Amino acid sequence: MRIGVLNGPNLNLLGTREPTVYGTTTLAQIDAELQAIAREIDVELVSVQKNGEGELIDVLHGWQHSVQGILVNAGAYTHTSLALRDALSGIAIPFVEVHLSNIYAREPERRHSMLASAAVGMITGLGAAGYGLALRGLVARLRAA
Amino acid sequence: MRIGVLNGPNLNLLGTREPTVYGTTTLAQIDAELQAIAREIDVELVSVQKNGEGELIDVLHGWQHSVQGILVNAGAYTHTSLALRDALSGIAIPFVEVHLSNIYAREPERRHSMLASAAVGMITGLGAAGYGLALRGLVARLRAA
Amino acid sequence: MRIGVLNGPNLNLLGTREPTVYGTTTLAQIDAELQAIAREIDVELVSVQKNGEGELIDVLHGWQHSVQGILVNAGAYTHTSLALRDALSGIAIPFVEVHLSNIYAREPERRHSMLASAAVGMITGLGAAGYGLALRGLVARLRAA
Amino acid sequence: MRIGVLNGPNLNLLGTREPTVYGTTTLAQIDAELQAIAREIDVELVSVQKNGEGELIDVLHGWQHSVQGILVNAGAYTHTSLALRDALSGIAIPFVEVHLSNIYAREPERRHSMLASAAVGMITGLGAAGYGLALRGLVARLRAA
Amino acid sequence: MRIGVLNGPNLNLLGTREPTVYGTTTLAQIDAELQAIAREIDVELVSVQKNGEGELIDVLHGWQHSVQGILVNAGAYTHTSLALRDALSGIAIPFVEVHLSNIYAREPERRHSMLASAAVGMITGLGAAGYGLALRGLVARLRAA
Amino acid sequence: MRIGVLNGPNLNLLGTREPTVYGTTTLAQIDAELQAIAREIDVELVSVQKNGEGELIDVLHGWQHSVQGILVNAGAYTHTSLALRDALSGIAIPFVEVHLSNIYAREPERRHSMLASAAVGMITGLGAAGYGLALRGLVARLRAA
Amino acid sequence: MRIGVLNGPNLNLLGTREPTVYGTTTLAQIDAELQAIAREIDVELVSVQKNGEGELIDVLHGWQHSVQGILVNAGAYTHTSLALRDALSGIAIPFVEVHLSNIYAREPERRHSMLASAAVGMITGLGAAGYGLALRGLVARLRAA
Amino acid sequence: MRIGVLNGPNLNLLGTREPTVYGTTTLAQIDAELQAIAREIDVELVSVQKNGEGELIDVLHGWQHSVQGILVNAGAYTHTSLALRDALSGIAIPFVEVHLSNIYAREPERRHSMLASAAVGMITGLGAAGYGLALRGLVARLRAA
Amino acid sequence: MRIGVLNGPNLNLLGTREPTVYGTTTLAQIDAELQAIAREIDVELVSVQKNGEGELIDVLHGWQHSVQGILVNAGAYTHTSLALRDALSGIAIPFVEVHLSNIYAREPERRHSMLASAAVGMITGLGAAGYGLALRGLVARLRAA
Amino acid sequence: MRIGVLNGPNLNLLGTREPTVYGTTTLAQIDAELQAIAREIDVELVSVQKNGEGELIDVLHGWQHSVQGILVNAGAYTHTSLALRDALSGIAIPFVEVHLSNIYAREPERRHSMLASAAVGMITGLGAAGYGLALRGLVARLRAA
Amino acid sequence: MRIGVLNGPNLNLLGTREPTVYGTTTLAQIDAELQAIAREIDVELVSVQKNGEGELIDVLHGWQHSVQGILVNAGAYTHTSLALRDALSGIAIPFVEVHLSNIYAREPERRHSMLASAAVGMITGLGAAGYGLALRGLVARLRAA
Amino acid sequence: MRIGVLNGPNLNLLGTREPTVYGTTTLAQIDAELQAIAREIDVELVSVQKNGEGELIDVLHGWQHSVQGILVNAGAYTHTSLALRDALSGIAIPFVEVHLSNIYAREPERRHSMLASAAVGMITGLGAAGYGLALRGLVARLRAA
Repeated sequence: MRIGVLNGPNLNLLGTREPTVYGTTTLAQIDAELQAIAREIDVELVSVQKNGEGELIDVLHGWQHSVQGILVNAGAYTHTSLALRDALSGIAIPFVEVHLSNIYAREPERRHSMLASAAVGMITGLGAAGYGLALRGLVARLRAA
Repeated sequence: MRIGVLNGPNLNLLGTREPTVYGTTTLAQIDAELQAIAREIDVELVSVQKNGEGELIDVLHGWQHSVQGILVNAGAYTHTSLALRDALSGIAIPFVEVHLSNIYAREPERRHSMLASAAVGMITGLGAAGYGLALRGLVARLRAA
Repeated sequence: MRIGVLNGPNLNLLGTREPTVYGTTTLAQIDAELQAIAREIDVELVSVQKNGEGELIDVLHGWQHSVQGILVNAGAYTHTSLALRDALSGIAIPFVEVHLSNIYAREPERRHSMLASAAVGMITGLGAAGYGLALRGLVARLRAA
Repeated sequence: MRIGVLNGPNLNLLGTREPTVYGTTTLAQIDAELQAIAREIDVELVSVQKNGEGELIDVLHGWQHSVQGILVNAGAYTHTSLALRDALSGIAIPFVEVHLSNIYAREPERRHSMLASAAVGMITGLGAAGYGLALRGLVARLRAA
Repeated sequence: MRIGVLNGPNLNLLGTREPTVYGTTTLAQIDAELQAIAREIDVELVSVQKNGEGELIDVLHGWQHSVQGILVNAGAYTHTSLALRDALSGIAIPFVEVHLSNIYAREPERRHSMLASAAVGMITGLGAAGYGLALRGLVARLRAA
Repeated sequence: MRIGVLNGPNLNLLGTREPTVYGTTTLAQIDAELQAIAREIDVELVSVQKNGEGELIDVLHGWQHSVQGILVNAGAYTHTSLALRDALSGIAIPFVEVHLSNIYAREPERRHSMLASAAVGMITGLGAAGYGLALRGLVARLRAA
Repeated sequence: MRIGVLNGPNLNLLGTREPTVYGTTTLAQIDAELQAIAREIDVELVSVQKNGEGELIDVLHGWQHSVQGILVNAGAYTHTSLALRDALSGIAIPFVEVHLSNIYAREPERRHSMLASAAVGMITGLGAAGYGLALRGLVARLRAA
Repeated sequence: MRIGVLNGPNLNLLGTREPTVYGTTTLAQIDAELQAIAREIDVELVSVQKNGEGELIDVLHGWQHSVQGILVNAGAYTHTSLALRDALSGIAIPFVEVHLSNIYAREPERRHSMLASAAVGMITGLGAAGYGLALRGLVARLRAA
Repeated sequence: MRIGVLNGPNLNLLGTREPTVYGTTTLAQIDAELQAIAREIDVELVSVQKNGEGELIDVLHGWQHSVQGILVNAGAYTHTSLALRDALSGIAIPFVEVHLSNIYAREPERRHSMLASAAVGMITGLGAAGYGLALRGLVARLRAA
Repeated sequence: MRIGVLNGPNLNLLGTREPTVYGTTTLAQIDAELQAIAREIDVELVSVQKNGEGELIDVLHGWQHSVQGILVNAGAYTHTSLALRDALSGIAIPFVEVHLSNIYAREPERRHSMLASAAVGMITGLGAAGYGLALRGLVARLRAA
Repeated sequence: MRIGVLNGPNLNLLGTREPTVYGTTTLAQIDAELQAIAREIDVELVSVQKNGEGELIDVLHGWQHSVQGILVNAGAYTHTSLALRDALSGIAIPFVEVHLSNIYAREPERRHSMLASAAVGMITGLGAAGYGLALRGLVARLRAA
Repeated sequence: MRIGVLNGPNLNLLGTREPTVYGTTTLAQIDAELQAIAREIDVELVSVQKNGEGELIDVLHGWQHSVQGILVNAGAYTHTSLALRDALSGIAIPFVEVHLSNIYAREPERRHSMLASAAVGMITGLGAAGYGLALRGLVARLRAA
């Protein structure tokens, strides 16, 4: 089983970006931790970060026939991008949303996810650890299906 | 470390209640699975289900000095009860929200949580497995603090 | 066939409570009249009034395997309680809403029913007589099904 | 005592129109059933169906001095016609609204009645049987006044 | 003259609950202070605190024939409970709302009181002292009536 | 110069319809008074009342080449009929709105006129006398143009 | 009989102010025309223009015992001043609103009058002539009362 | 195959009505052009224009068993008439909406179609030519079904 | 200690202004009563009433260095004046809002206070007696600080 | 004459993407069909698909001096991209919107087009055939201008 | 060339008023700095500060024939005063808005300017220096016209 | 000191794009003028224009350690891009927004800036000259810090 991990705009800044909100773990550290879990639960992982909405859509299209599940942290596009939801629906692969901070405890414009209505589910506010939990949850669900 | 698990109205019906939405796992099965994880990660677990808003508040008050973290699935009170949020803020114990179904993919009246702004975070849509993930995530965070 | 009649908060005050709005008939008189109709149309009737949201949910759960249809006048919870709707949907028994006053001719906060989207239908504004009409209508429908 | 029954736009299609929503009973059958009840409870019945808003108003004006109560199923005009409410208020005759389907469980644009604030009450969602119940309820109320 | 003092959910936590918002005075201290004022102005006082909406309604019903005025701090139910307003209107006893914090300077969901439209008036933001002022104001008004 | 006076739904009931709102003057009396003023200021008057939206539009189309100004009291269609505004704009004849009652002091649904944005102006709340004032005002304006 | 005419902010600029909207007639010319009509219908007229909200309130208070009716063109305060409405209600003298332009055909912020709910009625969009019509209408109504 | 073309209120004025918005082509010219296309693609065409909402509904009911597809330009009723949508749904015949002007570039009250949610599709803003395109599109779709 | 009492527009009319809403006590009587309480609790009192928003701001600026607390009944400016709130925040002196009537039981436009978010608290609906209670409450708080 | 055809995000997936919504025709097939029509009506066609908002803007800028009309199916950017509308307005070339599905019969977030207010018009819901109709309509309009 | 500088309510408090928001520069210092710039760019400057809305309007009227451009910091009236906008439009002199703090980063009620739609432009958030920049920008624009 | 100047979508069209709105100055001319000012006030300037949201974010990330202040004209992304605000907050460098036209005097969708809440301030409506003023204002502020 192969899982795609897609990170959106500004997540490449993790570790230095507003650390009181997003913590000090870098994206490379999150990826390393995810790879360790992936090995433990015996799945293959591919991880990509892009700042452009179109680029993210291109990545998703490229995964249409090569991954069986997706973790998505679309950053700010979570709240504005219908095109990303269309891409996820278009390739028809189950996905789980992940957010480092608790988006429902932040500014009003972050309290709505454009992706959520097409997602399996969401983990929000559990920091970097949320990625690992989401990976475990998604894979368990895919194996149970 | 002691963790409280609080389940709200109608969750006692789990297993027979709208199974296409909530699955066929009963609350007793979820509790059993959580106890297994609790033993694995070496925490004590206390689990309560109540249908009354006031009763749930009473339970939370009773936990003020005896648990260090809380998992909450407040059922429909998630969307209507400011009093529950006040109880959680009042006892000042970190909590994680859990929802079986993906509340952000359902009717509009379920897409807002009264509790979320006071929560550490939320896991939604991952079914019964979401409880276990939330327990692991909450305990990891409490131990890291 | 057995029908449950559930009355919510403050309906125990009927007869003395704001009589220009709710009339002077007491709940006991309504129950007596309903029992007479029940005998006439050969159904068994069980009638409960509670002021607590959780208590009302408990009553509904207790009816899950013992009644075939329900009349509900949820009083003010009509307008605020998603948990009651969940309880009614959860036990999956057809119900008809009854209101003594015409809720659609009153203050704005009374013009929306949280229960209505799950109900068979509603009778509103026909006073105490509305209960009897609702009983006849519900039983006729159940027998036709 | 003489009661008017007014049916609005598209109700002449009953029986063939979206039968999963409106049932298979025709308007003629409803009228026949109502006439039977009318004879039983000793009232005279006049029944009219029109598709035009102005025509419906003309009918109501014509009833100003010849009926003592009115049943109204204004169809889609329920949700859009202030002029119909004015006509009903203008002739000052008590009326009860009837709807075949449960309008509060349908699309948002059907969940508000322009007539309700001037009505005695409403019966909604009880199908063709709702007309008969409304007739009994209205006549009982008029005789009690 | 006999006055009822009704405190709602979480007010039993006073003194330890979010002291920067609600102060460090306990409910017992407030009650003691109120009793002193009651003796001074020669009224009898009965004081109850409950966390459940239904329980609060039960208390109010019990007071229908035994108190002449009521002080209410309904806590979070202030903002969500139409049933409590109905109970207060139903027993038809004048009441004054009290709030420790200034609810109009807090989060938006606390800036609307469901009770206010039926109240004599409200004292908000004056801390524990507000209870005493409200007691004096209510009694003066009842004696002047 | 020829002026059309168009009265909409329910205005034929004037004199008996809700006299506390609309007064006791009949439409015939208003027409007679208007004819007297018309003779005084030397204009010809044609007056029509219809209950149907389509009929009112037909009348307006018929006036396209035979009147130079229009008084309109569209009754409840004032608040709901975009088609009437289109008819008035379509025939491109200046018109003044008249309302017997002060529509801006009534229910919210009467506080918006669909016609006003295309009108020369409006006289509201001055009762039957408002028609005469509007006639004088409209004719003066047409003669000044 | 004595009538007060109150003009609000910026109406002193009439004649030069945005003439395509407000015309070229000056306030002095309007006053002169009103005085002529006043003599014709045998009433005394007092006319004041002020730019300050408080000054306008002061004028109204001064008229409490010396005028029997009021014409008000409150300019932009029409749309923002609850204090002016309170002053008019406070002195309890019937008044008619006048607007030169058709406020209901302008920017959204001009389509609501704070005064209208307390007014006898309104004349809008008939230019300077509207004042004279309003004077005639108001006096006729006062004499009929 | 037989196609109905239904034109609503004020479309009989085409050619003279607000020509900068609606162009100078008359409805007769549009009908002639449509008939030519109909002959070319071998369908029979029946075309009706009415100003009354009820009359339009009557026409649609009359077509229930005699046409296989419908073009509708409901004029202003597009934005206000739920009854027309019910008529179209009630007869269950596929229809395409046509608008001469681009309704989504006009006043806000024209930017919502009550019919659209039941339509196959819509052509808007392409002027008189839009009818012909809609006819070709509708017939192609019906033949492909 | 010196306390300022600021009364806004139309409060000079007290005693004659809408007595069913505001009572028959005059402002002079309220001031006299307040002076008596002031002597009792040993504070100096200065009381001013103005109808103009700018004048009220001028008074507040003048108090910047001469009073230690303020009672404000801003009348209708309560609901519209951000400039008054800025003046109160600008001089940084604690203040309590007072309202004679219960503003939360009146028209919607009176149910929001522009001042409240900067106030210590508010007393509303307790009539003229509310001023005295507010004075006692404010002084007690200032002395406790 | 040269026409640009611009397809936005996810339209490259056509044929496999949610075929119940978007059909089974691929974008290549649509392009081929459009080329055939282009040859028939003697225009040159250039067709581009991009997933990125900035890339689409770049394409439009590149067409500023080389095409005379544009067909746009902006996919999900239709509902979110003001920048695309600015690009279309900035190059000042007439364009027609095309949508495969009927966007006005879908989820609320798809019922508003950011582009429509600047477009000549729109064809929606007519499937792949809509492109050909739009091409014919646009070219006819450009040749008539 | 002569430029007017108009400062509204509470700006006379600058330097002591909420210095974390508005800084410690006084209005006199701002004026001095502006006079220096005025001499540098060879314009005459007149500067006025008033707390009253009417007074500010009076000042603007007085400038109608004596200044060629205006800088306005209307303080809180920015957000509430349509009358000020009317005064500025009425005298028809170009003006630039200045705000010390960034009004778009503050409370919601400060994020809308009633004046902006009539202004040349706005400088906000650049502190006292914003006045000088606005003066330079306005004069440059007036000289270029 | 080094300052970045970031221009967003469609600003490369300046000079030819809607010149009545945006003027005839090209972006190259603005850049040249800014370089002259930069030399005058002794700062280094780097200027970039991109049409893609992701590309703009990439540029900002690249500036994280090489510029000390930023001027941003994000074009239409101003109103839609939370991701750009996140990028600006993420790199934590002070920035000033610039807009050529007065965005608060344009269509409603342009009257809200997604960036403003994180900006130092904004200059809007002062045309190309606004860039120079913003540069001076930003540098002055950075040097004062």
